[in-house]
Amino acid sequence: MSDRTKVLIALGGNALQDKDSDGTAESQLKVVRQTAEHLAELTASYYEIAIVHGNGPQVGRILLSGEAAADVVPPMPLDVCGAMSQGYIGYQIQQALKHALNKRGIDVDVVALASQTIVDANDPSFKNPTKPIGPFYTEEEAHELERTRGFVMKEDAVRGGWRRVVASPKPMGIVEINAIRHLWDTTIVICSGGGGVPVIQHEDGTMEGVAAVIDKDFAAELVAENVDADVLMILTEVEKVAINFGTPEEKWLDHLSLAEAASYAAEGQFGVGSMLPKVQACMKFVRRYPGKKAIITSLNSAIDALEGRTGTVITYA
Amino acid sequence: MSDRTKVLIALGGNALQDKDSDGTAESQLKVVRQTAEHLAELTASYYEIAIVHGNGPQVGRILLSGEAAADVVPPMPLDVCGAMSQGYIGYQIQQALKHALNKRGIDVDVVALASQTIVDANDPSFKNPTKPIGPFYTEEEAHELERTRGFVMKEDAVRGGWRRVVASPKPMGIVEINAIRHLWDTTIVICSGGGGVPVIQHEDGTMEGVAAVIDKDFAAELVAENVDADVLMILTEVEKVAINFGTPEEKWLDHLSLAEAASYAAEGQFGVGSMLPKVQACMKFVRRYPGKKAIITSLNSAIDALEGRTGTVITYA
Repeated sequence: MSDRTKVLIALGGNALQDKDSDGTAESQLKVVRQTAEHLAELTASYYEIAIVHGNGPQVGRILLSGEAAADVVPPMPLDVCGAMSQGYIGYQIQQALKHALNKRGIDVDVVALASQTIVDANDPSFKNPTKPIGPFYTEEEAHELERTRGFVMKEDAVRGGWRRVVASPKPMGIVEINAIRHLWDTTIVICSGGGGVPVIQHEDGTMEGVAAVIDKDFAAELVAENVDADVLMILTEVEKVAINFGTPEEKWLDHLSLAEAASYAAEGQFGVGSMLPKVQACMKFVRRYPGKKAIITSLNSAIDALEGRTGTVITYA
Repeated sequence: MSDRTKVLIALGGNALQDKDSDGTAESQLKVVRQTAEHLAELTASYYEIAIVHGNGPQVGRILLSGEAAADVVPPMPLDVCGAMSQGYIGYQIQQALKHALNKRGIDVDVVALASQTIVDANDPSFKNPTKPIGPFYTEEEAHELERTRGFVMKEDAVRGGWRRVVASPKPMGIVEINAIRHLWDTTIVICSGGGGVPVIQHEDGTMEGVAAVIDKDFAAELVAENVDADVLMILTEVEKVAINFGTPEEKWLDHLSLAEAASYAAEGQFGVGSMLPKVQACMKFVRRYPGKKAIITSLNSAIDALEGRTGTVITYA
């Protein structure tokens, strides 16, 4: 076993695509190659990393494309679309990162695993699905999809139109965790992409993919717990977490204790669906491992943050 | 290290889909679950296996779907479509096989890797691409695709219409081979799906995906060589290889030496694009490891063939 610091990295969407991305694989690869340079620098600085990435825009486009072509080819169910997005993104990261490592004379392998995440079939989110996915429909089309494909459809009053909604259950287990552990010392593993393909486990042990979306930061936290990582590092667009964001009292935070984070979260300081789940994932990690730390920062600041010069560090006390 | 027999399995298309498949993920999963039972039996019989699978129909549908939806979402390039098919198929096999193992009380992990296969940019097949992929087009559409997307298009006189053709280069290296080796003793690895995503390596070391299709049997052979497998087993629709197929002199073969195989191949006994590449892959394996054996048989007969009761065994002498 190595004495290097083990860092589980959760990569945000901006590490994979520009905001104004045209959605081509070619433009994504350009961004992924820049991201890979930063990740390779972490390895060159003697950190041992594993990577969990988001897949929102990619799985969105796979769904959109599949529905648009539904008269020609049967659309794939959401679990399979998730697995396809893992293949797509994992392939690009592993190719780009391997090259960025080679350039630095580092001979470490990089592999992306098809990854399943166990969720509880009784997770309350299945009773009230709220996560919108895929294209917009008219009310008539929406009801047709409810009838023919069993989708749950909801009206999006703000943007106008109907969309399919799915559950966003909590991750309970990482199916491939042993392989991730076996590979850790020799290999940079890309896993649980998009939070992992959500599967429920039936009483007879059968796993079955379900139509749901798992938050990738919560999945990353669960991987970090299970591989005994030293640091959970969530990379996003901002260098630090702020409170009173966009007001004259705006304050960028260097540090958050578990108690402070809980208190700010209760005040509604963190955006639901953006900063809140990241802070919550960090809270869960330091609650589980009170001696360890979690960091929220930007890709550019990753090394500085690990060395204590920037980022928002979340610790137990 | 274990003293169990290491078997590299190349799974044919019939192990993933019925001939008359409707192309849905659900119907594929049913076939994959049956296949998983056979694979689990191999593990239960103390064979150590790794799996390479084909992806022809799946990547064909991904291409078809992508082109049909091209006005809505940018179509993915062929290398990304291949990686997506690895995610799709790998996810289903790993889910089904894990359950089939659990049922037998076997606690072995199963993981599918996004897999790249190095090909030579100077492979002669790039000068004369012949492998048709994706949808049929009119002559006008075909020339438009040549102009706008740089595709090589050829007329299919028999079926009527134009199709994109790509190269089918020989596999030269398995990028993720170290990870496959690291996992072997503890994990059933699914790798090099569809022959692996073909990549060329530039002088500066950069890998780049290319529009090509690698024969999965040749890729399986290369994996088998590189993990020092004891047996290369190519599973297909027939229990044995035949000569004089469909004639009164038809003969099903129990054994083929390298010399016999070469001689029958030269006579044109084996179907180009079907049995020939399988026999050639087996020939390459026993030429590389004269003390080992390769087997061509059906999924149902896999254990019987490993135990010498059926199948066509190819050996050096």
